[in-house]
Amino acid sequence: MNKKTILGFLGNICILEAILMLFPLLVGFIYKESFLTINAFLITIAILLVLGLLLRKLTPKHPKYNLKEGFAITGLSWFLLSFFGGLPFVLANELNSIIDSTFEMASGFTTTGSSIIPNVEAISQSLLFWRSFSHLIGGMGVLVFAFAFIPRMGEGSVNIMKAEVPGPTFGKVTSKNQSSAGILYQIYLVMTAVLVLLLMLTGMNLFDSLIHAFGAAGTGGFSNKVLSVGYFNNPAAEYILSIAMILFGVNFNLYYLLLKKHFKQVFKNEELRLFLTIITIACILIMLNIGKDYSSLEKLFRDVLFTVSTIISTTGYATVDFGLWPLFSHLVLLLIMFTGSMAGSTAGGLKQSRILIYLKSFKREIQCAMNPRLVKPITVDDKPVSSSYIKSVLNYLGLYLSIFICGVLLVSVTQNDFLTAFSSVAATLNNIGPGMNLVGPSGNFAHFTPISKIVLTFMMIIGRLEIYPVLILLMPNLWKK
Amino acid sequence: MNKKTILGFLGNICILEAILMLFPLLVGFIYKESFLTINAFLITIAILLVLGLLLRKLTPKHPKYNLKEGFAITGLSWFLLSFFGGLPFVLANELNSIIDSTFEMASGFTTTGSSIIPNVEAISQSLLFWRSFSHLIGGMGVLVFAFAFIPRMGEGSVNIMKAEVPGPTFGKVTSKNQSSAGILYQIYLVMTAVLVLLLMLTGMNLFDSLIHAFGAAGTGGFSNKVLSVGYFNNPAAEYILSIAMILFGVNFNLYYLLLKKHFKQVFKNEELRLFLTIITIACILIMLNIGKDYSSLEKLFRDVLFTVSTIISTTGYATVDFGLWPLFSHLVLLLIMFTGSMAGSTAGGLKQSRILIYLKSFKREIQCAMNPRLVKPITVDDKPVSSSYIKSVLNYLGLYLSIFICGVLLVSVTQNDFLTAFSSVAATLNNIGPGMNLVGPSGNFAHFTPISKIVLTFMMIIGRLEIYPVLILLMPNLWKK
Repeated sequence: MNKKTILGFLGNICILEAILMLFPLLVGFIYKESFLTINAFLITIAILLVLGLLLRKLTPKHPKYNLKEGFAITGLSWFLLSFFGGLPFVLANELNSIIDSTFEMASGFTTTGSSIIPNVEAISQSLLFWRSFSHLIGGMGVLVFAFAFIPRMGEGSVNIMKAEVPGPTFGKVTSKNQSSAGILYQIYLVMTAVLVLLLMLTGMNLFDSLIHAFGAAGTGGFSNKVLSVGYFNNPAAEYILSIAMILFGVNFNLYYLLLKKHFKQVFKNEELRLFLTIITIACILIMLNIGKDYSSLEKLFRDVLFTVSTIISTTGYATVDFGLWPLFSHLVLLLIMFTGSMAGSTAGGLKQSRILIYLKSFKREIQCAMNPRLVKPITVDDKPVSSSYIKSVLNYLGLYLSIFICGVLLVSVTQNDFLTAFSSVAATLNNIGPGMNLVGPSGNFAHFTPISKIVLTFMMIIGRLEIYPVLILLMPNLWKK
Repeated sequence: MNKKTILGFLGNICILEAILMLFPLLVGFIYKESFLTINAFLITIAILLVLGLLLRKLTPKHPKYNLKEGFAITGLSWFLLSFFGGLPFVLANELNSIIDSTFEMASGFTTTGSSIIPNVEAISQSLLFWRSFSHLIGGMGVLVFAFAFIPRMGEGSVNIMKAEVPGPTFGKVTSKNQSSAGILYQIYLVMTAVLVLLLMLTGMNLFDSLIHAFGAAGTGGFSNKVLSVGYFNNPAAEYILSIAMILFGVNFNLYYLLLKKHFKQVFKNEELRLFLTIITIACILIMLNIGKDYSSLEKLFRDVLFTVSTIISTTGYATVDFGLWPLFSHLVLLLIMFTGSMAGSTAGGLKQSRILIYLKSFKREIQCAMNPRLVKPITVDDKPVSSSYIKSVLNYLGLYLSIFICGVLLVSVTQNDFLTAFSSVAATLNNIGPGMNLVGPSGNFAHFTPISKIVLTFMMIIGRLEIYPVLILLMPNLWKK
């Protein structure tokens, strides 16, 4: 690998983050925040600019990015963004440790939404804005953002972006080139703007609307209230956010197809159908399980729809403390934590397109066990899927589970509660946010040991980048020339 | 499918079970047990003989067993054996419900060893002998037993046996034909006899030695003591059983190769190496985790070796209440519950041969992600493994997990403790015996609802028969002509 090419590119990322930090800085000025807070942003921006310009100088004249470099750049970028993104929290004295601030901003950029801040309402507005803004940026991908809006960066730079887009998608219009990346990003920003307006119409103020729209758009889940969305006690906003979170869990290619008026293709999309089916089944199962504790059917429906929508979209807002629900409901939620939403959306998890392949592949395997001579390819949306592709998707499940198991083992060294350890790793690897028990909607991640926090930070980035870009960083032989 | 062929074969199984029941009947006579208990066996034997002879009459003149019929016969046989095997418990008034007695004997035949009897020491000797004897029979397979010792049963009867032998094995000498099945069964019985003698040498009486040798040989785990092996407080017996359980978790083909003096082939066997490596790592991890609670290193080593050996071999004896260990040790145990021992042994779980394939396949997948042009087949024991075979083993993992998840969901409807629900399904599906918390070594399965008991009974048989023979019974279209 060409280290100079990689370092040079990371310089761009530093400069990009410095520019993005101008937004929270503006918020700081508007709210007339303390010198300490404003200064925290200014110092970080200065560090990023200096570092960025120095690194950029290393870039070769004709940079070339192959697959390996794409992976390495993606993995390194996300760690770098999280580390420097967290600096203002420490410089402003609002968090005590770099480990905590990196955790918090990795949670932001990966759109996880797990927080180590016990009382979020005591944090400055500019910092709250910054961590929610990172959801918006991280949702569609930081490098996709760079790719969509920055002029041509060098040969093979598509390899960088490919490593960041959550797959696998079956459609044609993935962000494979600069122009389509731009279109998808525009759809995304317009949808977010509409959501901000709708939330304001329900009576929420601009700042709260922005924060919660960013969280829903990126399927992140950071709130500026301890009680999350539950604080507002606003049924209309709850319904709007429920639907918005599901919509941001849909493959953005489908919106592109809708714009092009390919309605039939959208409604026949098998991944979309599976996604909506799973949402319906999960809602029904949980409503049956907890129904007896509710006197109002509307409230039951609203709470369950919101919770299912927030979990399957891997957002992680809360209107009720689902930690108090019975085990059966917890398990349904844990399951949809792992399925996640559709590929090509801003959500995490295994993705519905993989679940679709698994279901079809398992069914075919049973048929083949009874009828070994059966030869018929598996199809998705009437197109055959190659056997080697299916094998690779099956391997992904195993790898994902192996990483999940390693995470739970590492966390359990210092955390003795099964549901807490299990769900904290599930919630970070799948980019949800809250888990259950100690890390439930009414808890947070502050009590973990520093080592567990580092493990969970890795889980968030591994989950967001779908394993390989992080794994490649851990392989010593790939750093040799 | 030809229903008459299937029913006719089930007639043979009834008669076989009637003959096997003569052994506990003899124990009943030796211990001069009550008329009620003796009668319970006599009545069951009579029912089995009448039913068996009636069913046998249905057998066509030239029965032919194809793959589907092999699966269906295998699945039905195990339910039938468990149901009728449990009858004496109910007829002797020692259990109150058919669901409980079927659970207990399914646990016996599948060599699970989960018990719904709170005070096992209050049960008649003949019944205790019977349930442990079912471990010995079920370990190597009831149909393999029939196949090894009963004269030729019809064309394609190898299809019945294939459905019962736990795979996948890579060697040549699986019980593919009658003569090799006979040899493997002889090795098995001789090893069991040696174990009985060794246990008696440590001071255990004949009855206790038989019970615990059966449990170790079949990797079942039923004991005649509430405290399991811990009751005897006999370090020599604990070491002997630890090693015996590991030896019965080894692929029996390797013993056959040893007899043939193919030493090199045995010691180079990759599955064996993985098995021993995992045992070593699990022991070290647990010893590090719980070491501070022990003053004697020997006792620590003995307790951990015994527990790892009993769990990875899916036996389920206990010398300590590992339910009191910390979460990290629980997780290590849960993991080796799922790996299980080697294919072609008497143990349950996914089998080490599959784990070997998973590890190699995941590694290759990572290599391919970095180097998409890499084409190199995966090898086991220096032989290439086909891509379609790997896909089928990967699918098995997904199916296994799906069944596990369904089991946990069903049990959680009436069981609100996560570790209890999770580990009860893990312990039954992997044919271990005890789980954790309420179903730990000091607990039992009595408190589950009847529906949960039925679910767990299914889990045991699905786990023992490796999914397909049970799944085929649930497919309505396969029963059509």
